[in-house]
Amino acid sequence: MKDFSKELISRLPRYLRYFGEYVNLNLEKISSADLARRLGVTASQIRSDFSHFAFSGQQGYGYNVKQAYEEIKKVLGLYEEKKVILIGVGNIGKALVNHKMFHNRGFKLIAVFDKYLQGKAGEFQIRHIDEVDEFVKQNKTDIAILAVPSNASNEVAMRIVDLGIKGILNFCYTDLNVPDGVVVENIHIRDHLMTLSYKMGEENKA
Amino acid sequence: MKDFSKELISRLPRYLRYFGEYVNLNLEKISSADLARRLGVTASQIRSDFSHFAFSGQQGYGYNVKQAYEEIKKVLGLYEEKKVILIGVGNIGKALVNHKMFHNRGFKLIAVFDKYLQGKAGEFQIRHIDEVDEFVKQNKTDIAILAVPSNASNEVAMRIVDLGIKGILNFCYTDLNVPDGVVVENIHIRDHLMTLSYKMGEENKA
Repeated sequence: MKDFSKELISRLPRYLRYFGEYVNLNLEKISSADLARRLGVTASQIRSDFSHFAFSGQQGYGYNVKQAYEEIKKVLGLYEEKKVILIGVGNIGKALVNHKMFHNRGFKLIAVFDKYLQGKAGEFQIRHIDEVDEFVKQNKTDIAILAVPSNASNEVAMRIVDLGIKGILNFCYTDLNVPDGVVVENIHIRDHLMTLSYKMGEENKA
Repeated sequence: MKDFSKELISRLPRYLRYFGEYVNLNLEKISSADLARRLGVTASQIRSDFSHFAFSGQQGYGYNVKQAYEEIKKVLGLYEEKKVILIGVGNIGKALVNHKMFHNRGFKLIAVFDKYLQGKAGEFQIRHIDEVDEFVKQNKTDIAILAVPSNASNEVAMRIVDLGIKGILNFCYTDLNVPDGVVVENIHIRDHLMTLSYKMGEENKA
């Protein structure tokens, strides 16, 4: 359970998603060949990936679905529900409040903050950003989702980092400066569009 | 301008973003040291990256901002504006319609489709999905953004691929099956949250 490669780490959420589906379908076992077909990689790639986990498949049997699902969850740190706050209720923020990722999948949205907006966002009463300090002191908070205007992002990030939050999912189109020990995962939508454009150009050359 | 590594490709949008800012600030040149500080990598990493481009910095001078900006745009396939359609005007779709990525940055949203919703989304009159065939035949379309319910995603993807669209930005929480020659870039928000969770666990161990 150590020294996962970047590539394997990037496949983990997908593995969890697939095994979650297999669990829902009441499948008991799944072969590396079936998994490989699903992921578009080779079966030996699958076996190599799964050799890093604390369980193993059996020749001619495949992987125990339930066991694999629990193990991948554990590796992803999802053995206990992560509490999430959202800061910034603009267009993206509004979309996130109702996002399925918070439906019983290891993450729970517990509060929503904005500097200007009042009223409700989905089921949540929007709190003023100045209440965030008190809220986080009172309520264990693991992750903050940042969807504030870019020019405010670093200021807000500093503030929540000071409150002891160790994980930020950043939708702002800036790269945050955070101290060691704090993890930032960026979702820069425009960058994805550019990467797509680049790959289309490469595909065109081929 | 060939054989870019995956790592370099992933840095290209960031380079473009930074050089875009430098252009806006009317900077004429930028040193690899300044760039490196900004990206959190070493200056020799920067020099190695930039050695792949069709221009080079000068010792003690740095990179010509305007030249670098244009070159990176070219590499990313952004020398001409890419026309984009959005399919699915749910929460995420609504957020995307107003997203800044369409403000004069190489991508232009030209139409918005939904199966059920009518009326307007931002400035756009929402069109019925059944109009997409005719629309794409009449209007050159490079990229489709998919933000439909997951269970409809593959059907819709097939349909637009048949219309000759070669690039899909996929917000659906499924992996699309598309033929060779079509490029899919996924934005799976929940996967990012899981990756964040994993990295927080690693950080915790350290």
